Amino acid sequence: MAPEAVHPQIQTIAYGADSFEETASAVLTDLAASVHAPAVRWINVDGLGDIPTLQHIGKEFGLHPLALEDIVNLHQRPKVEAYDSYLFIVLRMPVASPSTVDVSPARLETEQVTMALGRDFVVTFQERPGDSFDPVRHRLRNPGGQIRQRGPDYLAYALTDAAIDAFFPILEAYGEQVEELEDDVIAQPGNRQIARIHELKRNLLTARRALWPLRDMVNALLREDSPLIEKQTLIYLRDCHDHASQLIDMIETYREICSGLVDIHLSSVSNRMNEVMKVLTIIATIFIPLTFIVGVYGMNFDPEAGPLSMPELGWRYGYPAILMLMAIIAAGLLIWFRSKGWIGRGRE
Amino acid sequence: MAPEAVHPQIQTIAYGADSFEETASAVLTDLAASVHAPAVRWINVDGLGDIPTLQHIGKEFGLHPLALEDIVNLHQRPKVEAYDSYLFIVLRMPVASPSTVDVSPARLETEQVTMALGRDFVVTFQERPGDSFDPVRHRLRNPGGQIRQRGPDYLAYALTDAAIDAFFPILEAYGEQVEELEDDVIAQPGNRQIARIHELKRNLLTARRALWPLRDMVNALLREDSPLIEKQTLIYLRDCHDHASQLIDMIETYREICSGLVDIHLSSVSNRMNEVMKVLTIIATIFIPLTFIVGVYGMNFDPEAGPLSMPELGWRYGYPAILMLMAIIAAGLLIWFRSKGWIGRGRE
Amino acid sequence: MAPEAVHPQIQTIAYGADSFEETASAVLTDLAASVHAPAVRWINVDGLGDIPTLQHIGKEFGLHPLALEDIVNLHQRPKVEAYDSYLFIVLRMPVASPSTVDVSPARLETEQVTMALGRDFVVTFQERPGDSFDPVRHRLRNPGGQIRQRGPDYLAYALTDAAIDAFFPILEAYGEQVEELEDDVIAQPGNRQIARIHELKRNLLTARRALWPLRDMVNALLREDSPLIEKQTLIYLRDCHDHASQLIDMIETYREICSGLVDIHLSSVSNRMNEVMKVLTIIATIFIPLTFIVGVYGMNFDPEAGPLSMPELGWRYGYPAILMLMAIIAAGLLIWFRSKGWIGRGRE
Amino acid sequence: MAPEAVHPQIQTIAYGADSFEETASAVLTDLAASVHAPAVRWINVDGLGDIPTLQHIGKEFGLHPLALEDIVNLHQRPKVEAYDSYLFIVLRMPVASPSTVDVSPARLETEQVTMALGRDFVVTFQERPGDSFDPVRHRLRNPGGQIRQRGPDYLAYALTDAAIDAFFPILEAYGEQVEELEDDVIAQPGNRQIARIHELKRNLLTARRALWPLRDMVNALLREDSPLIEKQTLIYLRDCHDHASQLIDMIETYREICSGLVDIHLSSVSNRMNEVMKVLTIIATIFIPLTFIVGVYGMNFDPEAGPLSMPELGWRYGYPAILMLMAIIAAGLLIWFRSKGWIGRGRE
Amino acid sequence: MAPEAVHPQIQTIAYGADSFEETASAVLTDLAASVHAPAVRWINVDGLGDIPTLQHIGKEFGLHPLALEDIVNLHQRPKVEAYDSYLFIVLRMPVASPSTVDVSPARLETEQVTMALGRDFVVTFQERPGDSFDPVRHRLRNPGGQIRQRGPDYLAYALTDAAIDAFFPILEAYGEQVEELEDDVIAQPGNRQIARIHELKRNLLTARRALWPLRDMVNALLREDSPLIEKQTLIYLRDCHDHASQLIDMIETYREICSGLVDIHLSSVSNRMNEVMKVLTIIATIFIPLTFIVGVYGMNFDPEAGPLSMPELGWRYGYPAILMLMAIIAAGLLIWFRSKGWIGRGRE
Ligand SMILES: [Mg+2]
Ligand SMILES: [Mg+2]
Ligand SMILES: [Mg+2]
Ligand SMILES: [Mg+2]
Ligand SMILES: [Mg+2]
Ligand SMILES: [Mg+2]
Ligand SMILES: [Mg+2]
Ligand SMILES: [Mg+2]
Ligand SMILES: [Mg+2]
Ligand SMILES: [Mg+2]
Ligand SMILES: [Mg+2]
Ligand SMILES: [Mg+2]
Ligand SMILES: [Mg+2]
Ligand SMILES: [Mg+2]
Ligand SMILES: [Mg+2]
Ligand SMILES: [Mg+2]
Ligand SMILES: [Mg+2]
Ligand SMILES: [Mg+2]
Ligand SMILES: [Mg+2]
Ligand SMILES: [Mg+2]
Ligand SMILES: [Mg+2]
Ligand SMILES: [Mg+2]
Ligand SMILES: [Mg+2]
Ligand SMILES: [Mg+2]
Ligand SMILES: [Mg+2]
Ligand SMILES: [Mg+2]
Ligand SMILES: [Mg+2]
Ligand SMILES: [Mg+2]
Ligand SMILES: [Mg+2]
Ligand SMILES: [Mg+2]
Ligand SMILES: [Mg+2]
Repeated sequence: MAPEAVHPQIQTIAYGADSFEETASAVLTDLAASVHAPAVRWINVDGLGDIPTLQHIGKEFGLHPLALEDIVNLHQRPKVEAYDSYLFIVLRMPVASPSTVDVSPARLETEQVTMALGRDFVVTFQERPGDSFDPVRHRLRNPGGQIRQRGPDYLAYALTDAAIDAFFPILEAYGEQVEELEDDVIAQPGNRQIARIHELKRNLLTARRALWPLRDMVNALLREDSPLIEKQTLIYLRDCHDHASQLIDMIETYREICSGLVDIHLSSVSNRMNEVMKVLTIIATIFIPLTFIVGVYGMNFDPEAGPLSMPELGWRYGYPAILMLMAIIAAGLLIWFRSKGWIGRGRE
Repeated sequence: MAPEAVHPQIQTIAYGADSFEETASAVLTDLAASVHAPAVRWINVDGLGDIPTLQHIGKEFGLHPLALEDIVNLHQRPKVEAYDSYLFIVLRMPVASPSTVDVSPARLETEQVTMALGRDFVVTFQERPGDSFDPVRHRLRNPGGQIRQRGPDYLAYALTDAAIDAFFPILEAYGEQVEELEDDVIAQPGNRQIARIHELKRNLLTARRALWPLRDMVNALLREDSPLIEKQTLIYLRDCHDHASQLIDMIETYREICSGLVDIHLSSVSNRMNEVMKVLTIIATIFIPLTFIVGVYGMNFDPEAGPLSMPELGWRYGYPAILMLMAIIAAGLLIWFRSKGWIGRGRE
Repeated sequence: MAPEAVHPQIQTIAYGADSFEETASAVLTDLAASVHAPAVRWINVDGLGDIPTLQHIGKEFGLHPLALEDIVNLHQRPKVEAYDSYLFIVLRMPVASPSTVDVSPARLETEQVTMALGRDFVVTFQERPGDSFDPVRHRLRNPGGQIRQRGPDYLAYALTDAAIDAFFPILEAYGEQVEELEDDVIAQPGNRQIARIHELKRNLLTARRALWPLRDMVNALLREDSPLIEKQTLIYLRDCHDHASQLIDMIETYREICSGLVDIHLSSVSNRMNEVMKVLTIIATIFIPLTFIVGVYGMNFDPEAGPLSMPELGWRYGYPAILMLMAIIAAGLLIWFRSKGWIGRGRE
Repeated sequence: MAPEAVHPQIQTIAYGADSFEETASAVLTDLAASVHAPAVRWINVDGLGDIPTLQHIGKEFGLHPLALEDIVNLHQRPKVEAYDSYLFIVLRMPVASPSTVDVSPARLETEQVTMALGRDFVVTFQERPGDSFDPVRHRLRNPGGQIRQRGPDYLAYALTDAAIDAFFPILEAYGEQVEELEDDVIAQPGNRQIARIHELKRNLLTARRALWPLRDMVNALLREDSPLIEKQTLIYLRDCHDHASQLIDMIETYREICSGLVDIHLSSVSNRMNEVMKVLTIIATIFIPLTFIVGVYGMNFDPEAGPLSMPELGWRYGYPAILMLMAIIAAGLLIWFRSKGWIGRGRE
Repeated sequence: MAPEAVHPQIQTIAYGADSFEETASAVLTDLAASVHAPAVRWINVDGLGDIPTLQHIGKEFGLHPLALEDIVNLHQRPKVEAYDSYLFIVLRMPVASPSTVDVSPARLETEQVTMALGRDFVVTFQERPGDSFDPVRHRLRNPGGQIRQRGPDYLAYALTDAAIDAFFPILEAYGEQVEELEDDVIAQPGNRQIARIHELKRNLLTARRALWPLRDMVNALLREDSPLIEKQTLIYLRDCHDHASQLIDMIETYREICSGLVDIHLSSVSNRMNEVMKVLTIIATIFIPLTFIVGVYGMNFDPEAGPLSMPELGWRYGYPAILMLMAIIAAGLLIWFRSKGWIGRGRE
């Protein structure tokens, strides 16, 4: 258990078609009192920082020591396990935070939610307060809603669905980031872009690690044939499976695009370097020979030493002739560069 | 639902071996009136922008709330789901637009089509007007065609087939783009080429996202053994499956070629930079030492300071000798470059 | 159908243990006449450019409209489909052309062959004249051969085997090209090599697209348990499956090697550029400082302006001293380059 | 067998609900003596360097020659094999060493542990002293613990669980190394970083080679339906399977991130080289033409040779004019570089 | 058949618990004579260069024509096929040669071994003399060995095991080459390293092509349930399967490491080029501006043309001032390079 673990806070909602009772901060004895009431009860525990409390709850609902161990061990993979009198479910949902859905690719974090689905109860355990379950709470408070007519299996479905649905806005934000990066990576490839692609790929990996086993888990529930899940709930779980598949599709697509962007980035940087090198080469190739020529006529050989000792320096048109020669060399090189496609319209 | 959602427009076609009735803009009450007529009815709804209308239609044909939810949630994956009295099918077809089939790699978009196949009806829902179903409408209007003798399952097949077939011209256009890029990427590698490859890869991903689950869906229909699908329709669905497989084959092939093109592009840019660098190096390596030599004889040491103080400047053949020396150095370097294969026929 | 489609030409071979009759250019009425003869008949149709002819043949042998559609739609994937009275088989064989087996990586093309295997006939349809079936024809003409004792299922096997075997010389040629490229890509990496690798990869993809489903098709035949295939023919189909597996193994191996070659090419180009850059850097690093020094003593400061104004120019050993200084600098830099491993035996 | 193989040292623990007996250095005859005692016995052998000892133990517990061969052949893959009277299990656990869990990526090594699970005994063989089983020994010594009430199958589970759990701290350390490398690879890409990534990838491969078959082995135990494993132990093995899956998830995630880091490294180096090249190009492109101009006016043409022979040298404002010209050229080039985004705030 | 095919040489070993008879160069009639002897016979044929001999042997042991075809067609994939009275097995073993196990990555070659396992015989066919079966021959000659008590199925196992075991020393040598390359590729990346990696990858592919289907073949034998394989031999085949799995694990690990090495090589070359470029850039950036300055004072403007015409040349401290200016510029640039991390301890 992490040292910063939060002390458990317990909320309970007990409901039936005609009754609804909500307790914001339940105490352990209340739990015991209501165990035999004829309604569906949802006990939600936020924070796993007090082992005795969790053990008390575990005992109350008959949870196996291995299930209790899974509740406090964060970083579980989503799964479902059948125990004698309950199904034990592990989910992951994105940590609700404003930064995760904005455009800058902040680190995505997922929170573990464990759930025990019994004959007349659902107990959920979260790492810390804050979750994606408010739409479910809202539907529970509405007396006419379908969820009030149904058993705990439907509640478990609704919570799973809410956890999965919470990934949609995040993946849509990632889709926008991908679009933005696609433009940037060609227009101005640089370390900032490569770092953003990497961060995005990392977040997609995190989402994938949560959603692949989540889908498998829903699939296992569909095939489980447990007496705890009514037949008419299966069709809703199938819908859940669909949503998870859709999210995984999005993740895989974005991952492939990001991999492509890494290659584009490298190509783009190479293209740019090529351009830089061409400028250097053109300038150097034109001026280095010319500088050599002017160097020749800057030599201090004594013209009076003999008829072959730099007689050009004394010619009447020596200077204009050498200027002309250099102009011809420069023009020739420029034509050659153009013919190679290094300058001018020949290249896009 | 997207804000720009189109208000539903309803067309109906009721037909049998001997009857045919088409209504371009049906109203909801007409739907109700014709429900018990002894013919196959196809109700097509273009636009999902009015929930009450959709709910009315849903009620008329007994559609489950989850099916209705799927109808309005775009970005569904193709699938088939068996409900008690109908099969619920999700398809994706390319948005018909002239730009998608021309040579420039415009962004491919797919439109969601949902379909309910009942005992005597097919209801289809499209995001917006315009589809690939005109060949089916044409065959329905022809009194002697096989489709007029057959039930709604054959109509559902024909619509699915039309949706799949609509991808063929698009993938053929992509094939041509691939051919064109193969030439360009070696001849003139640049950012434009890399951007075109990326766009093409993206479109192939989009087509793949539509077609992989579409094929799975057809496969599920083949194995479904539903009373709603007559045995002699299965052979047609098998043909559909074939076409989807062929498209997926094309997509995978083009995707592999595009991946190869990215690598070729990078190699090609590197080859080009190598060429640029060689020109620079040859020019610089020849002239830098020569420029140094002429610099030496441009120094202003006083020849009269002593017998070792630049006596060459006063030699009778000093100047021609130094020119000769420089010519020998240049020739030697050129021979060395040729022996390394940097210039001349040694290199292709 | 492609516009350049060839007008059908029909050859028939009717044979039994004791009879053999071959017609080079059969006419449609002959086909009808011989339908009830007590022999195995092989009707081969070259060219699909005349729909009425094909429909006539289709009617004669009871082919389903979907099968006829497949016959004229080229680019089918190999497959087998059971119809009531015949098996419908699609094959792909390499287009026989001298260029495909020579060393330059010409574009590989495959031709579609469709086959209907009935109780006493095999009908084959080819895109155009020319095929890999001559060994089969040869064996049929030999009165003592096993094939003359066997039914149409064995003929269908023999044709499938011939189509698969036709890929062997092509893949062997590719193997040689791979070997050649392995040497070239390190010795002289360039655009020509990269283009050849790409072409080879493309051809391997084409062969793979033909052979993967071909193997699946043979596998389907093995498991089909059709009354049209005698039990003793299965062992021959198993051999066919083996050959297809062997070809696919070769393809996958060559594909992996080609992928490796692309990476080697890039590394090799980078290594070469590194070498080029080292030469440039060594030359420039040695001569640029020296050129600066000689530039200093080429300045025209008036030595008579004061005792600090370039007194070196008038020193008796100024010139030899500066030459010595420059020699020391050059030697120092050369030693430094050698210590970095940029020159000399320290590097391979 | 490796030459440095350690001579076997044998420890035994015999226990039941009410009894506990531990022998630190058992001798072979003791083993024989206690075979029929009514308790669970765990015989642990450290070191495989003496074949007769191992054969004696093998004979005592009825081990098959192939099992004995596996015990001494290191580098086995984890597996479970059913023999008539015992299950033979191969595990791999990390070699416990302080260096493996610290931040520098030391080479991970795994040690082979073979185990025979019989009706009343567990025999384990290790390559050398030192293991991850101390938590199990501790629980065995505690009279009230569950493990004392259970049979040898539970002991085998506990040992397998301990071997798997020993990978957790190592993978957490790898996770931290990954985080650290992510920062370094962009900030200061170099050979040290690339070597660290490679070492990390190698260690992840080693862990994966141990854990993939370990998970398969646990899965095989779950499905084995052996009389040697009590039904209530299965739930514990399922937990083991979970932990292995979680570790494999971590490994795959880190492997993907490391692959991404290799690409980032290359891009980052290219970005850096681009920057270097830009500096060189800017400096060279500005000064090379200017140096040419000053070279022109350093030529020694005789101004008295004619009116076109460098008359500028004698002009009153020739020198300031040429300085001005050069300033204008330099400013023009700087503006051009800025417009290309090579200098200034236009680039990040 | 290859032209260099070797003429068959036949050795026979006939053995039972109490008898042993070995013939180094059997003739065909001997084979016939001993067919009905009450012992296990192993007939080994080295060289496939004489078809009549092979046909004679095939007839003697009732081999199917397709099996005979497989015997002479080299490049078969390992497989097992059940015929009526025998199992037909294809193996591949490494060609025994000293070069394959030494450190230089010579090309790995595998030899095809075909085997027919009948009720009282094993016939093996090899491409050429020399094999890995000597340990088996040695065990057969030992009267007390288990193999002498067992039937031909155990002999077939022993030969398969020997063929698989022959890959171990080769893969261990590859492991050492990998280790060596890991060091070299960072320390001195070059074409030699990249060629060695490629050669190693190629050999790993060859080994994989032999071992993947070999493992499948052993697996097929395990599930075959043939009367020709006694139940107590299965446990030995399971051990064989294990060894093949271990080899495949090694191959996959080395392949992944080699792929990583290719990337490291490229990064390492890029790092090195970066270093080279930095040296060039530092030298050029410092000296090019200085050379410009000395060029300015080498211009021949006439100081007497006017008061602005290079008056510095006549100043008393002009020369030392300009030297000072240049020292300041050089120092400034050095400080700037250090601040960018291009020189000094800031960079590793
Ligand atoms: Mg657990
Ligand atoms: Mg929470
Ligand atoms: Mg949902
Ligand atoms: Mg929902
Ligand atoms: Mg997770
Ligand atoms: Mg996939
Ligand atoms: Mg790539
Ligand atoms: Mg839905
Ligand atoms: Mg539409
Ligand atoms: Mg179609
Ligand atoms: Mg169609
Ligand atoms: Mg889609
Ligand atoms: Mg078709
Ligand atoms: Mg043809
Ligand atoms: Mg064949
Ligand atoms: Mg053949
Ligand atoms: Mg094909
Ligand atoms: Mg594979
Ligand atoms: Mg690659
Ligand atoms: Mg073994
Ligand atoms: Mg140990
Ligand atoms: Mg554990
Ligand atoms: Mg544990
Ligand atoms: Mg291992
Ligand atoms: Mg990559
Ligand atoms: Mg064969
Ligand atoms: Mg041999
Ligand atoms: Mg072995
Ligand atoms: Mg062995
Ligand atoms: Mg092989
Ligand atoms: Mg790579």
